[in-house]
Amino acid sequence: MSITILGGGGFLGLKLARRLARDGQVGGRPVEALTLFDLRPPPAPEGAPFPVRSLGGDVSDPAAVAEAVQPGTRVVVHLAAVVSAQAEADFDLGLKVNLHGTLAVLSACRALPSPPRVVFTSSVASFGGGQGAVLPDDARQVPENSYGAQKAMGELLLADASRRGMVDAVSIRLPTVTVRPGRPNKAASSFVSAILREPLLGLPAELPVGEDFAVWICSPRRAVEWLLHAMGMDTAGMGADRGVNPPGMSAKVGDMLAALERVAGPAARALVRRAPDPAVAAIVGGWPAAFTAERARARLGFSEQEPLDELVRAFVEDDLEETRRDRGL
Amino acid sequence: MSITILGGGGFLGLKLARRLARDGQVGGRPVEALTLFDLRPPPAPEGAPFPVRSLGGDVSDPAAVAEAVQPGTRVVVHLAAVVSAQAEADFDLGLKVNLHGTLAVLSACRALPSPPRVVFTSSVASFGGGQGAVLPDDARQVPENSYGAQKAMGELLLADASRRGMVDAVSIRLPTVTVRPGRPNKAASSFVSAILREPLLGLPAELPVGEDFAVWICSPRRAVEWLLHAMGMDTAGMGADRGVNPPGMSAKVGDMLAALERVAGPAARALVRRAPDPAVAAIVGGWPAAFTAERARARLGFSEQEPLDELVRAFVEDDLEETRRDRGL
Repeated sequence: MSITILGGGGFLGLKLARRLARDGQVGGRPVEALTLFDLRPPPAPEGAPFPVRSLGGDVSDPAAVAEAVQPGTRVVVHLAAVVSAQAEADFDLGLKVNLHGTLAVLSACRALPSPPRVVFTSSVASFGGGQGAVLPDDARQVPENSYGAQKAMGELLLADASRRGMVDAVSIRLPTVTVRPGRPNKAASSFVSAILREPLLGLPAELPVGEDFAVWICSPRRAVEWLLHAMGMDTAGMGADRGVNPPGMSAKVGDMLAALERVAGPAARALVRRAPDPAVAAIVGGWPAAFTAERARARLGFSEQEPLDELVRAFVEDDLEETRRDRGL
Repeated sequence: MSITILGGGGFLGLKLARRLARDGQVGGRPVEALTLFDLRPPPAPEGAPFPVRSLGGDVSDPAAVAEAVQPGTRVVVHLAAVVSAQAEADFDLGLKVNLHGTLAVLSACRALPSPPRVVFTSSVASFGGGQGAVLPDDARQVPENSYGAQKAMGELLLADASRRGMVDAVSIRLPTVTVRPGRPNKAASSFVSAILREPLLGLPAELPVGEDFAVWICSPRRAVEWLLHAMGMDTAGMGADRGVNPPGMSAKVGDMLAALERVAGPAARALVRRAPDPAVAAIVGGWPAAFTAERARARLGFSEQEPLDELVRAFVEDDLEETRRDRGL
């Protein structure tokens, strides 16, 4: 089958493309062609047993997206987004990419002779809740940030288009993905990766919240597994609700640091310094720290997040060297 | 204050404009100017103690909406919509008017020097549920029709824009409004008004569902009261959730017909003929028949739906003659 990854140059898109190149199939069906689309043409994964097209363009430009979603496309993975901090800083850019981009994706899919599977990454940021919350699967999305609002709008659009038979969508509300490769950034959630990644690189990191602070997380490996599952799964049992709260893990910062110490030793753990930041605490304090995720587990076949030690080791195995190289360390 | 009604030519818009002309104020503040906007310039209400502008245009055209929302506008009532049956028949038209229209409204509001109150009519159609459901205020919106999906998207957009201080929005999820003036149409909910209106006009009506079938309803009078309340209310206590399930009434068809008989006699009641229509029953069977509406009642000050007899009499008093005239009866 022919697959298009929109946002194929981001860290999840690159990992997914590599995995497809390695496996050569999804859900038992061989991959026949892959198109990667991002603002700049993404690098093709090495050793792919199928042709790879790399395209550069703006996801809110219907013509550019139509070029990326050519006749024969069976699966569209729509990862292209302006992330939370940026969507908060620039409302119009967020609307353009996160809302009008998703409209352009739908438009391109409707031009196909048969409705493709669309795998859309929504986000835990589409919910409010806070530390005490354990959100059930039918929790109402009352976003407290523009990114979450735009993602929830995209979910509604794709669910309705699925009901109408224009696409066959699965929207995965990703937890905070950790350990992200790259650098610390200004996102309020940046510390969730930084407190593990930086010490593993031998660098100091600051912890803006207390060790009891809990976050709903998943690893990049698990996020890729969920994307692969959503690309091939049977959607017949989903009904009108195309949104999925996948089985992430509610982890306390202290437990994440204990895992860091077990994997990388006390010297790594000692690189994390407590630096209370009320502004960051106020933002992340509103995010729900846990979900029941029963539907995804029991009925939709999404796999469980691996334990924290394995999550830390996965960064070492998958991303440490490349991150070191990219950052000139 | 200066008010703009988008969709001011529809039946609720016309009723609201007449009421403003009569009262000359909203929430104790005098109305200084009124702009009515619809596809065709709506008729100005008679005897208004303030200037009335009537404009024709497309609500999805940002320039047209900007012309209707001039500097100084304090309240925008956004009623302009493609209704459920039409949005279901023409997906692109629904998206254009219901989604891009609301984007254009937001755009026009952002150009004002201070954020206006925006009163947006969302709908019970944004929920699933069915006959057995009594939906709490935090019920998740899982729309099973394009109109409901587009309305829920509009709610998310306006709630986020309110959080950001661009507007100050209240989204009222209107029940099925009955008795609507006009004619029977192809909307699945058409019978809810037709079984009262047609007999009051001396005409026969068909009932596609059983008399035990329950509908979440409100009268046009009540809808106008809610709009007026939302135009003037204090929104400080709403938090991130700008959507309101107003205190409508869960009424069985049999109770509505009994009220008809009490008000207009057994001959009127006898004009309603049972004509089972499984297609209509299947559609309306998915609509939630009841809401708790606790937040609207106890915390937000929305008034209660009047009893059924009064709802029937209100049509006789407010709309019977005009409907007769409009339909050449």
